[in-house]
Amino acid sequence: MLLFAAMLLLPPDVAQRLVGGALSDGLAYARLAELSDTIGPRLSGSAGAEAAVKWALQRLKDDGLAAHLEKVMVPHWVRGEERGEILSPAAHPLFLTALGGSVGTPQGGISGEVIEARSLPEIAALGERARGKIIFLNHTMGQKGGYGDFVGLRTHGPAEAGRVGASAVLLRSLATGSLRSPHTGATNYEAAGPKIPGAAVSVEDAELIHRLLQRGPVKVRLTLGCHSLPDVESANVVGEVRGRETPDEVVLLGAHLDSWDLATGATDDGAGVVIVMEAARLVAREHPRRTVRAVLYMNEENGLAGGKGYAAAHQSELARHVAALEADSGAGRPIGVSVQAGEGGAAQLRPWLGALESLGLAEAADGDAGGADISPLEPFSVPMIAVQQDTSHYFETHHSAADTLDKVQPEALAKTAAAVAVVAYALAEMPQPLPRPPPKAPRESREPPKPAAH
Amino acid sequence: MLLFAAMLLLPPDVAQRLVGGALSDGLAYARLAELSDTIGPRLSGSAGAEAAVKWALQRLKDDGLAAHLEKVMVPHWVRGEERGEILSPAAHPLFLTALGGSVGTPQGGISGEVIEARSLPEIAALGERARGKIIFLNHTMGQKGGYGDFVGLRTHGPAEAGRVGASAVLLRSLATGSLRSPHTGATNYEAAGPKIPGAAVSVEDAELIHRLLQRGPVKVRLTLGCHSLPDVESANVVGEVRGRETPDEVVLLGAHLDSWDLATGATDDGAGVVIVMEAARLVAREHPRRTVRAVLYMNEENGLAGGKGYAAAHQSELARHVAALEADSGAGRPIGVSVQAGEGGAAQLRPWLGALESLGLAEAADGDAGGADISPLEPFSVPMIAVQQDTSHYFETHHSAADTLDKVQPEALAKTAAAVAVVAYALAEMPQPLPRPPPKAPRESREPPKPAAH
Repeated sequence: MLLFAAMLLLPPDVAQRLVGGALSDGLAYARLAELSDTIGPRLSGSAGAEAAVKWALQRLKDDGLAAHLEKVMVPHWVRGEERGEILSPAAHPLFLTALGGSVGTPQGGISGEVIEARSLPEIAALGERARGKIIFLNHTMGQKGGYGDFVGLRTHGPAEAGRVGASAVLLRSLATGSLRSPHTGATNYEAAGPKIPGAAVSVEDAELIHRLLQRGPVKVRLTLGCHSLPDVESANVVGEVRGRETPDEVVLLGAHLDSWDLATGATDDGAGVVIVMEAARLVAREHPRRTVRAVLYMNEENGLAGGKGYAAAHQSELARHVAALEADSGAGRPIGVSVQAGEGGAAQLRPWLGALESLGLAEAADGDAGGADISPLEPFSVPMIAVQQDTSHYFETHHSAADTLDKVQPEALAKTAAAVAVVAYALAEMPQPLPRPPPKAPRESREPPKPAAH
Repeated sequence: MLLFAAMLLLPPDVAQRLVGGALSDGLAYARLAELSDTIGPRLSGSAGAEAAVKWALQRLKDDGLAAHLEKVMVPHWVRGEERGEILSPAAHPLFLTALGGSVGTPQGGISGEVIEARSLPEIAALGERARGKIIFLNHTMGQKGGYGDFVGLRTHGPAEAGRVGASAVLLRSLATGSLRSPHTGATNYEAAGPKIPGAAVSVEDAELIHRLLQRGPVKVRLTLGCHSLPDVESANVVGEVRGRETPDEVVLLGAHLDSWDLATGATDDGAGVVIVMEAARLVAREHPRRTVRAVLYMNEENGLAGGKGYAAAHQSELARHVAALEADSGAGRPIGVSVQAGEGGAAQLRPWLGALESLGLAEAADGDAGGADISPLEPFSVPMIAVQQDTSHYFETHHSAADTLDKVQPEALAKTAAAVAVVAYALAEMPQPLPRPPPKAPRESREPPKPAAH
């Protein structure tokens, strides 16, 4: 762990304008309020998503960027009615929500006895005992691990449970805190495999089911009206600050416009959207050497169509994408910078980041970086940079009805926007681009794990 | 603030059995799990309430107490369907729940423009501007006050709003934390006054409405299916440890069996029920001088029929009720003892409470004490004793769907049961009863304020 070097390659007046602009204008928070409160939820395919596309395009233009849409086809999954209850040994409502992409239940719901499993191998090991049962997927997120350790239960649990003949899955919400609110998120079936419904229950309901199973058999019913409609056309929103010397070299700043439908996605990923907008706005005034491109992706949450579509459409440019940074870790304050590049990447970048010390960032170091939307760039050796953020409260509200504006501290949001602006300017201005890392194999999962919270 | 006196009037072997029994048996938590998980919600008039009465009677008998039921007639209010939404300037669902006792809306709900008020006088001051509007009652609980400071908005807000011609009330939930969960609680109409529907919205929804009102007009719709059915017969559950010398002198330990319908009432007031049961069980083994009477009241939440009924039925005995203690502040650890008696009350009790220091209690002092169920005893000069508890998390879950067993720490619960056992034994064994306070006027409110959380 190295502190930022004392040698400052970023001119002090530029640093002052980038950081000062982010901290004093208050534009990021005002825009997040606009997006959250006046547009609201924006799941792919919804009217809210389309309104967000139009809004983002206009705001990028307002900031003087050259902005345009890049079309992508996205899934159109809708939630419908959903409810559940414990039938025996005592009647309790279940606070649950369908997993994104789940099939619905038949009319009248699915009733059955519950059987508990705590991992994908445990599902397989249930074998015949799972037939016709509702598998309850329990875990220890929060006590013994983070999101990344357990998200596979959500993405693959219903597919695995279908294979052993289960009728449905109830997943303990992936959350670090709860007041009876379930947390959704995508699940993926195999094309040729069985498709059984999957829903997340709140942490409280999961603990209740677990306790009741210690007393004896537990029977539940769940009714899910969710279903998929035909794919619809949507768009990534792209805004550019054209480089003054090497405009074909691109620093990509990414975030995603779509959100889950349960809330306004203020932290996932409205915060990232306004952080990227604000960084691009501030960097534009400094006319850096390379192009800085803000890409506001569609469909990160349930398909990654935007991320995949961007990589496919821009494949010929990717060798000249000198870096990519995704802001998709909420609205917390910035705590460090991680550089996933060729050897010496962090050392090369560090002297440009002295201004970050005043923002409270502790280090810039080689390490993992990236994000779901920019993950399709990894096979093309694009260096990945992350401004790491405090996520200690992120998974209390993530993918739940509580992901609302009140969870955002304006000052923390502004600090992260400032940090991203400084990093983006450095990447766009430093004389030599960062060394490129070796190519990575494409990620298999449709929604790769996000940073774990502990 | 005085520490407990060094002089110990409570025999050390008795203290050890009372405290040791509560801390090592684990019976309070096991019983709370039984009540919460296998009986569940128990609003007055519901099947759960009746199951809880039967359960409590049996458990008191199991502990060797002389137990019986004392009939009371209770309201039978049912919640029905409930939903709400912001219609403009943008579509948002409202996470809301009807206030207990509220009338429902007409078929199709009530739509209207929202107008904000922050106090009962502000409602009155709206005058004609409120006619036909939906009044949004905002407040600053958590930042600038506690439950007791704002509960009047809930108990009297709809009545006041009806007087100025409003069509409905949306109350910001009385809560110190939120993950989009609304908090219910009783509201009271005047018999001859207008009755308009009232619902609590989650803190997040309240903040959203407040922000949207800064942008311009806000229109909402709410649909409440709640309604009142005819009163039904229910019961207080009473268990006695008969005094060995002066059995007609009574130390009353109270808690309430009923809970709101949204959750299992683990902390409100399942915790109080098992604390009182455990204290009575432990004190019974010590055969104290006076009678210790556990009274598990029905209908504290929405009518106080049990509390009023007990006082009426036992009026001839109340001059010989030497003390009353109510456990209705959740499951937090004990932090002190408050004595509302005649002059010198705390000083007389303090030498008996040395055993409480080991439980972490800081003081026993003269001060306010009491509780809703035992408040009808105040006009009869019954000394009131409170074992004060840590309520720092109580109002995050209070009256909401999140009032579930997982919020209870078994060790804190056991410590409070131990403290109540020690206090109850002291009151039942000390040679002279506490001096009696002057009579208080009857409380007007049907649900008096509970202790404030800060």
